[in-house]
Amino acid sequence: MKDKPRYIAFEGIDGVGKTTQAKLFQFFLESINIKSLLTKEPGGTPAGTKIKQILLEDKIYKETKLLLFLADRSQHIREVVKPNIEKGFVVVSDRSLYSTIAYQGFGEGIDVEFLYKLSNFTNDSILPQLVFLIDMQPETCIMRCRKRGKEKNESISFLRRVREGYLKLSKEKNFFVLNGQKDIATLHEDIVKIWNEL
Amino acid sequence: MKDKPRYIAFEGIDGVGKTTQAKLFQFFLESINIKSLLTKEPGGTPAGTKIKQILLEDKIYKETKLLLFLADRSQHIREVVKPNIEKGFVVVSDRSLYSTIAYQGFGEGIDVEFLYKLSNFTNDSILPQLVFLIDMQPETCIMRCRKRGKEKNESISFLRRVREGYLKLSKEKNFFVLNGQKDIATLHEDIVKIWNEL
Repeated sequence: MKDKPRYIAFEGIDGVGKTTQAKLFQFFLESINIKSLLTKEPGGTPAGTKIKQILLEDKIYKETKLLLFLADRSQHIREVVKPNIEKGFVVVSDRSLYSTIAYQGFGEGIDVEFLYKLSNFTNDSILPQLVFLIDMQPETCIMRCRKRGKEKNESISFLRRVREGYLKLSKEKNFFVLNGQKDIATLHEDIVKIWNEL
Repeated sequence: MKDKPRYIAFEGIDGVGKTTQAKLFQFFLESINIKSLLTKEPGGTPAGTKIKQILLEDKIYKETKLLLFLADRSQHIREVVKPNIEKGFVVVSDRSLYSTIAYQGFGEGIDVEFLYKLSNFTNDSILPQLVFLIDMQPETCIMRCRKRGKEKNESISFLRRVREGYLKLSKEKNFFVLNGQKDIATLHEDIVKIWNEL
């Protein structure tokens, strides 16, 4: 376990199956006796839960949205991620700073270099050491969300930019890209295989 | 009125009388038939009101606090300040970005240059053209707050750094420093005099 990553993020656009796979992966870690914690952004802390409500309910500008996501993350890193890594846990997070780079950067057109600079401050230099990017056509994601009764107001063209952003990131960072079209069990198997081979 | 400032901020530590003087000044502008609007940070918008609640109620890190203040300001500038300036109003604001420079920068030790960079993004380049800084000993401010039933948990040494920060800013920016020890009417007279002489 010594050289295994301690901070692992699941990324992708809404509907790809991130949350399910993050949960399954954390169960798997527990089952092999690795102390681990499942958490999420936004809303992974009490303050973050309130921030998430504003993000969901209020009509806000994209700059405000970015700053609220960063406030949520700042709190989450310091209150949850950092102390748990220090206690020897593996932290499995549903979303991370790369969501901001993909959505606010590539999706909404906020300068990506500026977002990385802000992320240094927000993340206290604590970055995911391993990222599972679940990739899928935005059209399929929207249909899946609809089935869950979660109507998205993001346009297809926006989600395409986000997806392309994620794929770009996957070439630069410690990402593993997974095919979100696969069924839950097969995807989980792929993820466990990657973990075991690390 | 052509050359008069359109965005005016009142600054100072809690208890100096900012809110009272901002109100009186806006009444004065109305009384001389200048269309004006009184607003505030944090909490000058519906989203900002919720952000303020988090700032008041939750145990948050200083980095989170900064990002929440900036989110509040980002929304306030775009939803209130900018459109009202464009409609020809004079916007009178109880606090502005200089509160962040004084409190989070000089008070809490976050790099001031970094705060200015962030402020360019947050403020959409809309900065107060005139600032009335009401200055007073922190000890007196704390006593005044206490009388209002508003117990502050900021230390004297913190408030001293904030005050010194404000005084430093007053030398660099378009600030007028006013003596908060003066009574309400005299302070208002000083402010009106400054306005008339502009």
